[in-house]
Parts: sequence; structure tokens; C-alpha cells
Amino acid sequence: MDFKPYIRTIPDHPKKGIQFRDVTTLFGHPRAFRAAVDALVQPYAGVQVDKIAGIEARGFILGGAVAHQLSTGFVPVRKKGKLPWKVLAEEYDLEYGTDKIEIHVDAVKAGDHVVVVDDLIATGGTAFAAIKLLERAGAKVIGCCFLVDLPDLGGADKIRALGMEVTTLVAFEGD
Amino acid sequence: MDFKPYIRTIPDHPKKGIQFRDVTTLFGHPRAFRAAVDALVQPYAGVQVDKIAGIEARGFILGGAVAHQLSTGFVPVRKKGKLPWKVLAEEYDLEYGTDKIEIHVDAVKAGDHVVVVDDLIATGGTAFAAIKLLERAGAKVIGCCFLVDLPDLGGADKIRALGMEVTTLVAFEGD
Repeated sequence: MDFKPYIRTIPDHPKKGIQFRDVTTLFGHPRAFRAAVDALVQPYAGVQVDKIAGIEARGFILGGAVAHQLSTGFVPVRKKGKLPWKVLAEEYDLEYGTDKIEIHVDAVKAGDHVVVVDDLIATGGTAFAAIKLLERAGAKVIGCCFLVDLPDLGGADKIRALGMEVTTLVAFEGD
Repeated sequence: MDFKPYIRTIPDHPKKGIQFRDVTTLFGHPRAFRAAVDALVQPYAGVQVDKIAGIEARGFILGGAVAHQLSTGFVPVRKKGKLPWKVLAEEYDLEYGTDKIEIHVDAVKAGDHVVVVDDLIATGGTAFAAIKLLERAGAKVIGCCFLVDLPDLGGADKIRALGMEVTTLVAFEGD
């Protein structure tokens, strides 16, 4: 399935010069959403996966579906201050300044095989922080799944260079 | 399946006297997460459902899985300012003051049959605002699904009084 036609591009959002890739139009389309989740799951048929880690907030939508389909647990990787229990935190760079993401200290068990899910990979800052967090908690991150890749920003290739499986379904070049 | 043992209670969070029901421990458990989604889906076997509307953020996790399982589209109901396109907004009451939730103006089509999904129903303020929003956009909300019900706060019964199917899997009395 060609997923690109289901994704809306919003020019100059959130600021001039940025082409925002709005995946909510794909999520809203029954066949496209179903096919996207099935394609993200496909590389993990017959592979041991214990947990899906979804990155807040759009990664929760895809990640919840992937976890259910693979019959794994789901771990929310949340923005700082959102989780109610003890957390591990990891900083990542924004265009200006830094931010933090967090997981519960008991979100994974030592040796758990985890796949990270988000809607989009650009430079990979958030995904790298999620991988580091999960590894600090003792998990083995075996792969990452993204609906959209912005390959010019190099995030997916940097994760592949760590030896991890990276699945992406749509690439927007020139972003 | 008895889901209650999989939910962690955090006393005095976010403030003294509140027993916070932490569903991340259930989400993290493969069998419990699978069974919860399957139970939420069950009333809709053979029923026309066009879209699942998940309420940010924990409703995204369950709602994404429910939408995939039912092969429907998924509509994110987001906190204000998070959606990139034109929105409809609806205000709801907090303990002190008000807040807003939003959907894209084109998130549903006129006549779409929609089921609202969230992790927990208390007074129902957010769920009612979501129902109103979806109806303003032309949808027919046929039901609501929640993992946790706090029945003393009456939200689930108020939605049932509208003639909608309401599914809840665990009740904590005395909250």
C-alpha cells in the first residue's frame, strides 16, 4: 500500500519553511490505519518481543495497536512530569534548548526485548533518548518502527548503525 | 479476567487524599493488555463502527488498539493547541477552572458511527466534551469504552442516560 496519499502536508507549520506531515488523516482512514499497523508488525512475526515502547503522543496510537497485535505489553515513554510513579529520565536536544522524556523505573524487566514505536523519525533525538532510557532500565531494544521517515535528517540511518532493525513506511525527501 | 490486580494504586497522588489508579502496570502486562482491549472490542462485534475517538493521552493507547482490532479509523481527541489543522473545540470543567479539547474539523464524516475510548471515567467531564465535539462534527456517538470506572462519581451512568452503550472493565468504589 502506498501510504503517502493518506498523509496531509501542512505548509509553513508550525513555522515558515516547515512542511508539517499530518498523520491524523492516515489514522482516520480505516484501511490505511489497519495496513500501516500490519506493516509495522510484519518484521516481528516469529520474533521474541516482550514490550512495545510508544513515544508520546502519536506513538501511543500506533504503539498501542502494535502491542495488541503482537500480544506484548505496552510501555508509555512520556514527556516529563506526566508519569505518576518513580521514573528514569533522559534529556534530548530540541532546536533551541533541551527537553526530557521519562519511563517508569519498573516499565521493563532486565532482558526484555523491546521495540520502540513513533509516528515519525527526523533527526532521531527523541528515539535515541527512548533507546537509552530503555537500555538503562535493563531492556534490549531490538528495533524501531516509524510510519514516516525524513531521510535527509538521517535519524533512521543512525539507529540502523547501532545494529537495530528500523522499519519505516513512507519517506518524505527534501524535508 | 479480573483486571484490578494489574492496576497500581498510588496513594495521595497527585495530592493528599486522592488514590491514583495507575493503568500503566496493566498496559505493561502482555496478557492483561491483550485481554482488556479484546473485552472493550467485544460489544461491537457485528456492529457498524466507523471511527474510534481516543482521548489524549492514555486513551490513545487503548483506542489505537481498539481501532486496529475493529478495522476502523482512529480520531485523536487532543488537548488544546496540539492539532496542526483547523479544529473544533469544546470546553470542560476542571476542579478549578476549565480546559479545552479539540478535534480536526474533518476528523469525522456526517453520519459516522463513533465509539469514544479513554482509560478512566470519573465525573465524565472530558468524555461529555468529546461526545459533544464529535456530534457537532456530524458524527453519531454510539458508545464509550473505559478501562476503569469510578462509579461514585457517576460519569458512566450519566452517559448511559443518553442512551449510549458504556463498557467499563474495572470499578473502584469509594473514590
